Amino acid sequence: MWSTTVHHAAVDAIAEQRYVISLSCPDTTGIVARIAGFLADAGGWIVEAGYHSDPDSGWFFTRQVVRAGSLPFGADELRARFAEVAAELGGETTWTVTDTGIPKRAVLLVTREAHCLHDLLGRVAARELPVQLDAVIGNHGELGDIVRAHGVPFHHVEFPPPGNGRYARDKEKAFDELRELVEQHDPDAIVLARFMQILPPELCRAWLGRALNIHHSFLPSFVGARPYHQAYARGVKLIGATCHYVTPDLDAGPIIEQDVIRVDHSDTAADMVRRGRDIERLVLARGLRWHLEDRVLVHANKTVVFR
Amino acid sequence: MWSTTVHHAAVDAIAEQRYVISLSCPDTTGIVARIAGFLADAGGWIVEAGYHSDPDSGWFFTRQVVRAGSLPFGADELRARFAEVAAELGGETTWTVTDTGIPKRAVLLVTREAHCLHDLLGRVAARELPVQLDAVIGNHGELGDIVRAHGVPFHHVEFPPPGNGRYARDKEKAFDELRELVEQHDPDAIVLARFMQILPPELCRAWLGRALNIHHSFLPSFVGARPYHQAYARGVKLIGATCHYVTPDLDAGPIIEQDVIRVDHSDTAADMVRRGRDIERLVLARGLRWHLEDRVLVHANKTVVFR
Amino acid sequence: MWSTTVHHAAVDAIAEQRYVISLSCPDTTGIVARIAGFLADAGGWIVEAGYHSDPDSGWFFTRQVVRAGSLPFGADELRARFAEVAAELGGETTWTVTDTGIPKRAVLLVTREAHCLHDLLGRVAARELPVQLDAVIGNHGELGDIVRAHGVPFHHVEFPPPGNGRYARDKEKAFDELRELVEQHDPDAIVLARFMQILPPELCRAWLGRALNIHHSFLPSFVGARPYHQAYARGVKLIGATCHYVTPDLDAGPIIEQDVIRVDHSDTAADMVRRGRDIERLVLARGLRWHLEDRVLVHANKTVVFR
Amino acid sequence: MWSTTVHHAAVDAIAEQRYVISLSCPDTTGIVARIAGFLADAGGWIVEAGYHSDPDSGWFFTRQVVRAGSLPFGADELRARFAEVAAELGGETTWTVTDTGIPKRAVLLVTREAHCLHDLLGRVAARELPVQLDAVIGNHGELGDIVRAHGVPFHHVEFPPPGNGRYARDKEKAFDELRELVEQHDPDAIVLARFMQILPPELCRAWLGRALNIHHSFLPSFVGARPYHQAYARGVKLIGATCHYVTPDLDAGPIIEQDVIRVDHSDTAADMVRRGRDIERLVLARGLRWHLEDRVLVHANKTVVFR
Repeated sequence: MWSTTVHHAAVDAIAEQRYVISLSCPDTTGIVARIAGFLADAGGWIVEAGYHSDPDSGWFFTRQVVRAGSLPFGADELRARFAEVAAELGGETTWTVTDTGIPKRAVLLVTREAHCLHDLLGRVAARELPVQLDAVIGNHGELGDIVRAHGVPFHHVEFPPPGNGRYARDKEKAFDELRELVEQHDPDAIVLARFMQILPPELCRAWLGRALNIHHSFLPSFVGARPYHQAYARGVKLIGATCHYVTPDLDAGPIIEQDVIRVDHSDTAADMVRRGRDIERLVLARGLRWHLEDRVLVHANKTVVFR
Repeated sequence: MWSTTVHHAAVDAIAEQRYVISLSCPDTTGIVARIAGFLADAGGWIVEAGYHSDPDSGWFFTRQVVRAGSLPFGADELRARFAEVAAELGGETTWTVTDTGIPKRAVLLVTREAHCLHDLLGRVAARELPVQLDAVIGNHGELGDIVRAHGVPFHHVEFPPPGNGRYARDKEKAFDELRELVEQHDPDAIVLARFMQILPPELCRAWLGRALNIHHSFLPSFVGARPYHQAYARGVKLIGATCHYVTPDLDAGPIIEQDVIRVDHSDTAADMVRRGRDIERLVLARGLRWHLEDRVLVHANKTVVFR
Repeated sequence: MWSTTVHHAAVDAIAEQRYVISLSCPDTTGIVARIAGFLADAGGWIVEAGYHSDPDSGWFFTRQVVRAGSLPFGADELRARFAEVAAELGGETTWTVTDTGIPKRAVLLVTREAHCLHDLLGRVAARELPVQLDAVIGNHGELGDIVRAHGVPFHHVEFPPPGNGRYARDKEKAFDELRELVEQHDPDAIVLARFMQILPPELCRAWLGRALNIHHSFLPSFVGARPYHQAYARGVKLIGATCHYVTPDLDAGPIIEQDVIRVDHSDTAADMVRRGRDIERLVLARGLRWHLEDRVLVHANKTVVFR
Repeated sequence: MWSTTVHHAAVDAIAEQRYVISLSCPDTTGIVARIAGFLADAGGWIVEAGYHSDPDSGWFFTRQVVRAGSLPFGADELRARFAEVAAELGGETTWTVTDTGIPKRAVLLVTREAHCLHDLLGRVAARELPVQLDAVIGNHGELGDIVRAHGVPFHHVEFPPPGNGRYARDKEKAFDELRELVEQHDPDAIVLARFMQILPPELCRAWLGRALNIHHSFLPSFVGARPYHQAYARGVKLIGATCHYVTPDLDAGPIIEQDVIRVDHSDTAADMVRRGRDIERLVLARGLRWHLEDRVLVHANKTVVFR
């Protein structure tokens, strides 16, 4: 059956098992030597390494990828041993060790706009994204058939129409249902793939660092509703899209990826909507890939992306 | 049912019925006046107009889009009347008048690489491409399920494995079957969406101007097989893709669209294959859209694309 | 002597004399036919033609380039005759006819940032821009030597340092001197090539449609001072530059051209300043070229650019 | 005097003295640890670090930038000590240690095409490139005035016109003179800034790794003469430029940087020549900057560029 292929894909895509170490800490001399020395002593074969010293914040960031097979122990033991190294680097240090042998899991939130959904389903089916899609949740039902055709469960959570007297209470209930559906999967990524509802602050906080949004403008230009129409009205010569982490401040979270395409006077606002989709698709797919591969480290309101 | 949505999409996408006039002829003074005068006399409201005078070839090209409702007659009468205008412009003149009220039809040819197929299916489902997909034909069967899930018929034409003594004859038979399947739809576009078979010259000639290929390099660099591996070996800093009309000369037909993305030393040949897909998808989708909207005029081995 | 070459360049760059007709008017049927008919009747050979119908504003725009030698009369007679055509298109119609045989003239305003100045001087010397540089005016003197080495007059207008009690009066005097220096050349383009003074509203109005600024951000993001530092603080993944007409609203005039380049976490604000220069140079040079070639038509606060 | 500013610029541009260590060797575990440990033991503060493991060649590459002031010894002592580390990494290891306190020196070779020359002179004058221009050598004299206006010595080496019976001998003599002029400066970079002569193989070999060329196509497309005309004839939709190291194989040396811009049917070959200059300028300036900053490591016929 076709849908089973999808779930295998997530596993097949990773040819060789690897451990991914990410770390941020206050900068000082000797950090690279400490980490590299630790890995060398254990026989670790580093296949990818990124380092960044930020002169403004005085903060240090690294991401290292090690062949699992080159170490004489597993992920848990690596974590236990690395914790000692990290402890030496000070109390503000944050770090993770992930194992590419355990596929990341994602839940998508959608409305009616189908292009990002179709793109992500296609990428998963074509084994391009290292992820297992656990569920798609829509506040309208109409995208359910295509999701299920891909062998992925679809849930419809009804949101109240605005204006109603019980609107606030019904909306809160809908978000409660949404939250429960999402959290039962404990996903690594919660992707707002053109989900046209603003998450309440408590959800933003609960999902901090896991919820990714695609905004259809080159932020910080054109925050909020109908950004293409804002862009059209201003007469800009490029339109863009931004993938960012969701925070309680609308469209103001740490930016993961952005891109633009050229428009001109012959493009109507409707043309911009259509043409912008190509950028939204790409920017979301790239941002999601980097998130899933633990390439994105957040510090204050900015990201370090080790590509 | 979801699949019926797909076919309606092709019609819905065109908001307002229009006639598209394309013409090429030897350049001289007064052509614009002649055509514009003809349309003005009939009350035609031009909503888009492109003109190009090529100083090297001495050739003139135009594409004009007229609101159907602004003319007191239909497409057939427009063709009959326009034929007289075209006749005045000399015997070498070629022209077409198409009606956006009649959806263009396409057949896709695929192998096992799924990314362009997924992208085009998603765009059709999201009502982005003004086309009706009549069929997808694969020389392997494995993409059939997803095609059928989109409500589009899938046909499997078996191609012989190389090396066999009866190879040439079996291959000819396979191409005969393919041809028959394609031609029963009389499609406006035959899209080689990563179809890994080289069409025989007689098919190239039969489908001239209707068969589009996506080649995974920035042509004329890296013609033929495994272009990303060629690009990797040469150490280029950008990789690309090319959408072109198929002609009997391999990868040498008129170019419709090209684009590139940046790679660097950290990208393996396998990374280039993966990352190149994003460009292949976009370039093929753009090239196909322009072809379907009659934006592409071919002269000698080059295209004029009125975007 | 080298500097004479510069001034010849402006003339040599235009191989063949042409007339450029630009027109905007309320849209209706038959405009193209009227203009094309007028030109055809006079034997005019159109070498470039751009048309745009704006569905939102209901406005029509065109730019047509005619070989001077194909017409039996000169620019003045063309203007007289075309005035009658334009009159038929209604009282709101605006139009110009320019003659490429008469070189456009420009004055540059600079401070101490040299990159845009060097770039424009180099382009003029390399005969790339169809313009005669009449003068460069600086509010500091230090770029004078290189300007004079290019055979272009340089004027230093001293601006008062802020904070002084007589500041407002001295500044007004400085702008009066600047205005006099500029207006004695009656230039077609007044280019603020990283001129770090805000023009007073009456100068903006006096030079409306002729004063071009390069702003070092992708507007409308990061209006005002130190845009790269604003971009750095926000953590954007692309930085840009915008060439726009100067209006009394700071950084809010009609946009002529924009472009961006990719930055990442390893770029400091100082890196962005340096790297952004490449985009500033290009965007200003393109915007200026289009302005000089009469490719830019302004309507409300937006531009139509016939490239 | 203005010209003295130029030479100071090269020094001023480097805010803080740093040592740049580059190394390539066969890959194995522990290399990062060995180098990082060496630097940490000496108190070295790493401000930039790039690593690359090439899975195909099995080769390892690194570039590290250390604050000079963080080490208790100077460049010579650093070289002596680092030589021991490098020796442990095997006999095939190659490495350099450079000191940003000692400005790199360059010689430019030009013909009559002025745009790359103007651009580089402007960048040096605007203190953007960390280099001291020792000389510009032209096989025509006409660019001498602008070079001297920038305070840089200009030499004219006359090359024989083709066809003459003594052509080969005269050309050899001219190249001998060129070589002598270049080598008396012992430059770090010999920049063929649109120098239209093919260097003889012995010069290519003598200057290997120091001679950079800008080719006006996206190599490997359109090798040799008149690449824009080749691009025009093929009808490509993007044109490009390539900065590469010069080797005895024409236009086939290791590629440092490439970029492209979009063209369409309305661009003549002459338009491509003009528009391509913007890409040539940028690509050459970027490639030269990376070369001067020791960011480019060559292995076989490919480059690793630590940006």
